[in-house]
Amino acid sequence: MAKKYNICLDVGGTKVLGAVFDEKDKIVCKIKRRSTEQGNASENVESVIIEVTRSLLKKANIKKSQINAISAGVPGIINPETGVVVFCPNLPWRNYNLTAAIEKEFGAKCYLGNDVNVGVLGEFEYGAAKGFKNVVGFFPGTGLGGGIIINGKLYLGGGFQAGELGHMVVEENGPECGCGNHGCLESFSSKKGMAKYVLAQEEKGRHSSLTQYIDENGVFKSKYLRMAVEENDEVALEAIDQACHYLAMATGSMISALAPDCIVYGGGVMEALGDLFLEKILQKVDAYAMPAIRPSVELKRASLGDYSNIYGSLALIKRAKKHQKKK
Amino acid sequence: MAKKYNICLDVGGTKVLGAVFDEKDKIVCKIKRRSTEQGNASENVESVIIEVTRSLLKKANIKKSQINAISAGVPGIINPETGVVVFCPNLPWRNYNLTAAIEKEFGAKCYLGNDVNVGVLGEFEYGAAKGFKNVVGFFPGTGLGGGIIINGKLYLGGGFQAGELGHMVVEENGPECGCGNHGCLESFSSKKGMAKYVLAQEEKGRHSSLTQYIDENGVFKSKYLRMAVEENDEVALEAIDQACHYLAMATGSMISALAPDCIVYGGGVMEALGDLFLEKILQKVDAYAMPAIRPSVELKRASLGDYSNIYGSLALIKRAKKHQKKK
Repeated sequence: MAKKYNICLDVGGTKVLGAVFDEKDKIVCKIKRRSTEQGNASENVESVIIEVTRSLLKKANIKKSQINAISAGVPGIINPETGVVVFCPNLPWRNYNLTAAIEKEFGAKCYLGNDVNVGVLGEFEYGAAKGFKNVVGFFPGTGLGGGIIINGKLYLGGGFQAGELGHMVVEENGPECGCGNHGCLESFSSKKGMAKYVLAQEEKGRHSSLTQYIDENGVFKSKYLRMAVEENDEVALEAIDQACHYLAMATGSMISALAPDCIVYGGGVMEALGDLFLEKILQKVDAYAMPAIRPSVELKRASLGDYSNIYGSLALIKRAKKHQKKK
Repeated sequence: MAKKYNICLDVGGTKVLGAVFDEKDKIVCKIKRRSTEQGNASENVESVIIEVTRSLLKKANIKKSQINAISAGVPGIINPETGVVVFCPNLPWRNYNLTAAIEKEFGAKCYLGNDVNVGVLGEFEYGAAKGFKNVVGFFPGTGLGGGIIINGKLYLGGGFQAGELGHMVVEENGPECGCGNHGCLESFSSKKGMAKYVLAQEEKGRHSSLTQYIDENGVFKSKYLRMAVEENDEVALEAIDQACHYLAMATGSMISALAPDCIVYGGGVMEALGDLFLEKILQKVDAYAMPAIRPSVELKRASLGDYSNIYGSLALIKRAKKHQKKK
């Protein structure tokens, strides 16, 4: 019998990252494509997914029939029972059966999950949160997503919507958030939130090198955040400080509520700022976490970097197979 | 064979409430004792527990040998695997095997749980939260306790300490809390928190009828809160408003994080203020809960009143038996 491979994808609002895993879970090859250049229409993202998968097959020199399964983390709400993308804030999928479309195209099983949920699952199965039982993940990037592992399983909650940690309320009268509410964690502890701070300071006549890199969506690339830190940009450092401050508050609340064994921080901001971000959170969190619980919680930086989601997608396949075997 | 009965207790910092259940889960008789009058020493509370149990046996006219099991909700951290009371903030038990002491005394199996955890379990098995899968419970009383049901099971977290919802941070620079941190939910949305507000207003020359009922521990009996509302006491109404405001914020955060199917509010404050408290929370919560998730969460008032814990204790026995059968 020919070898079987898993194709794992990380579908972002702006990029699709893909990898081929062999039977020993080793990455055979990988590919990255920008998906927004042709616009954000769902058919386009879908065609990019299909194109990336085809290119992966070609690059790895394997046939469709050698695919064991395909899986992807997608930035939206996924119903894992039906495979339907219920809703994607940044992509135009509404109750769309992306799973069926991919399965039809490649004749292999497909599994989807929410991107950050899947990223946290990746860290839990293969990364920094391995070996823990109850894990909370905060992933600050353009926005701030989260994921929760309870008793070793991804917790999805009602409507498969749990883990929206970016919408925990941290400031009673805070700025308006994309969700329509005010004072959400995401308004401070994400690239969007930090950009907002930088622009507000700019209006007060305080310049930051970051300002020039903020695009029409109010975001900048993570690498510029790193550059600003290296330049000792005062306003950018304040924005980072504020981000860590509120993230420490939300972390404290999650520690009191869930008493998890591990909290893992990942996403683009963590990738760009290395341990600086985690150190600042660690400095601040003790003021907000219940003292009786705090010592039993480990706070860690994600260890799979850009590949949290890819490995999480692999975990989705493994877990689905295990589940099938049990049946 | 003689009939078997379950003895279920609610052990508070100031009272022990007990009930005898028959085999059809009907309450045969009940007893309430104040436990603090003889002081708070652990032996005293233990002796009150034993005395209440004996009195229950007598009142129900049953023998020790007719006890199926004894269970209790206790205001502290319980290790359900060993039956040890790890820690009790208001009672002097430290790593004390209360379970063994009770089992020795009555020759029957004993099961303990954290009081508010058990109260939420009671509402989940027999009360307002019955039929839901994932439930969060906020129980404002002297302090504010919580409990979390995940996939139909009481979630205990690391060190069996989960559900400390009173220590979620809702106000960055809020007043100091008993736990040592600042701005905890409990500092606003509990009787202690409301008393603090009333006293602060008193210092500003604004009088409240509640003031005279605040004892040396900075608490008042719930019935006086109800009286103050009936008298239209302005300051007390503000304290209630503030309590509901912050409870709505914390509710919003828990909705975004866990997307539970139901949030249930119980405890002494809810008992005293009936639907007024819930109505105020409902008015405020939409501003803090993620709009995409909010509609799928039901917010309900506990329906078992003072008996949430007693029924939760009964649920502890049933669940333990089920678990044993599985083995």
